[in-house]
Amino acid sequence: MSPKTAAAPVFIFDLDGTLIDSVYQHTLAWSEALQQEDIHLANWRVHRFIGMSGGLLVHALAREAGREVSREQAERLQDLHGQAYAKRVNEVRLLPGARELLDGLDRFQVGWAIATSGKRDKARPALQMLDLSDDVPIITRDDVERAKPAPDLFLAAAEKLKVELEHCIVIGDSVWDLLAAQRARALGVALLCGGYGEEELIKAGAYRVYRDPADLLAHLDELGVRVAN
Amino acid sequence: MSPKTAAAPVFIFDLDGTLIDSVYQHTLAWSEALQQEDIHLANWRVHRFIGMSGGLLVHALAREAGREVSREQAERLQDLHGQAYAKRVNEVRLLPGARELLDGLDRFQVGWAIATSGKRDKARPALQMLDLSDDVPIITRDDVERAKPAPDLFLAAAEKLKVELEHCIVIGDSVWDLLAAQRARALGVALLCGGYGEEELIKAGAYRVYRDPADLLAHLDELGVRVAN
Repeated sequence: MSPKTAAAPVFIFDLDGTLIDSVYQHTLAWSEALQQEDIHLANWRVHRFIGMSGGLLVHALAREAGREVSREQAERLQDLHGQAYAKRVNEVRLLPGARELLDGLDRFQVGWAIATSGKRDKARPALQMLDLSDDVPIITRDDVERAKPAPDLFLAAAEKLKVELEHCIVIGDSVWDLLAAQRARALGVALLCGGYGEEELIKAGAYRVYRDPADLLAHLDELGVRVAN
Repeated sequence: MSPKTAAAPVFIFDLDGTLIDSVYQHTLAWSEALQQEDIHLANWRVHRFIGMSGGLLVHALAREAGREVSREQAERLQDLHGQAYAKRVNEVRLLPGARELLDGLDRFQVGWAIATSGKRDKARPALQMLDLSDDVPIITRDDVERAKPAPDLFLAAAEKLKVELEHCIVIGDSVWDLLAAQRARALGVALLCGGYGEEELIKAGAYRVYRDPADLLAHLDELGVRVAN
């Protein structure tokens, strides 16, 4: 009887704040949308909700501001956010090492996917910036019933990668990524480049915390990747 | 011989991120200025330097990006930041409870001052938003040789308030406020509303951490203020 060999780990990436430097623009875009509906919330509170699905986020932010929003208002807020973000999207850049990290994983024959809470059309500029080939598995809000912090996005990504979730390493910048990773029973690893403090991410269950994609690439062996040259 | 009585504490406030919700706009304004000079740094790194004097910040950010800047370039970057911030200043609001906190201190007969690393002309919109009376002591970059994290701003504020620094409580949102408070031997208290994580602030020496000015106002007695009605 030969000993059982676990599958090699695969990576599931969040997009905004993890591969793309867009969290600060999303924060101000949500603040602008909320102000247009006369909902006032400080930017740091908005920042801490980025990464949730837009639907949940709108209700969470309104509740923080002591307000309730109707279904129609929630949809309007998401549209207003889309418009406010579009004004800022030309400022958005890749995070350091994002493209190199994905290339490195390919070189080391490690599978990976992208799983974002955003809708496909809102995520398009970011995905284009990464210049991905057509065969990269990308899961967006449109592919699942519930986005983060529900684990559905990661479940769908694991299915596309044909790997059990216990062999998946989720890379994200927000506590919502880490909560969804815990719920999916995947290993959660955090990056500081979304602007959270290190301990916030550790408390949310991050197994390791790196600065940005470049720092993660330099330490892939710490996550059990066989880094052959 | 009567026992010695310590003076009542007075408060020295940072401005951006502590009373005014401007840190996210300052972050993107610095990023824009740096990009115009072909210096590329992720927004979360820029965010963590807000609150330093502009001169120090420019050199620190350039060094982070692996660059050196000349004196002329440093001055140009500060001008570009001023222009980029001016485009965003109409989005900037007071933080929750900022005005109420200052009114509360007046009511409880507690002295206070504002000490900002910004130059007076850059700080003007924020000071106007607070609608301060003419007799409020305000120390800006123009009044001292070195701004935060040097303690000079707080030393000047204490002098204007005619109080020893050991009786001053410094309220800030960044590690630079807390470093300057430590160097001035004042008590440092932090607010989360600048977007730092709680532990980052505690590690930098915060005696207490509150959410925002409203939360601080609700807990003034924890800092030894005699809250009479």
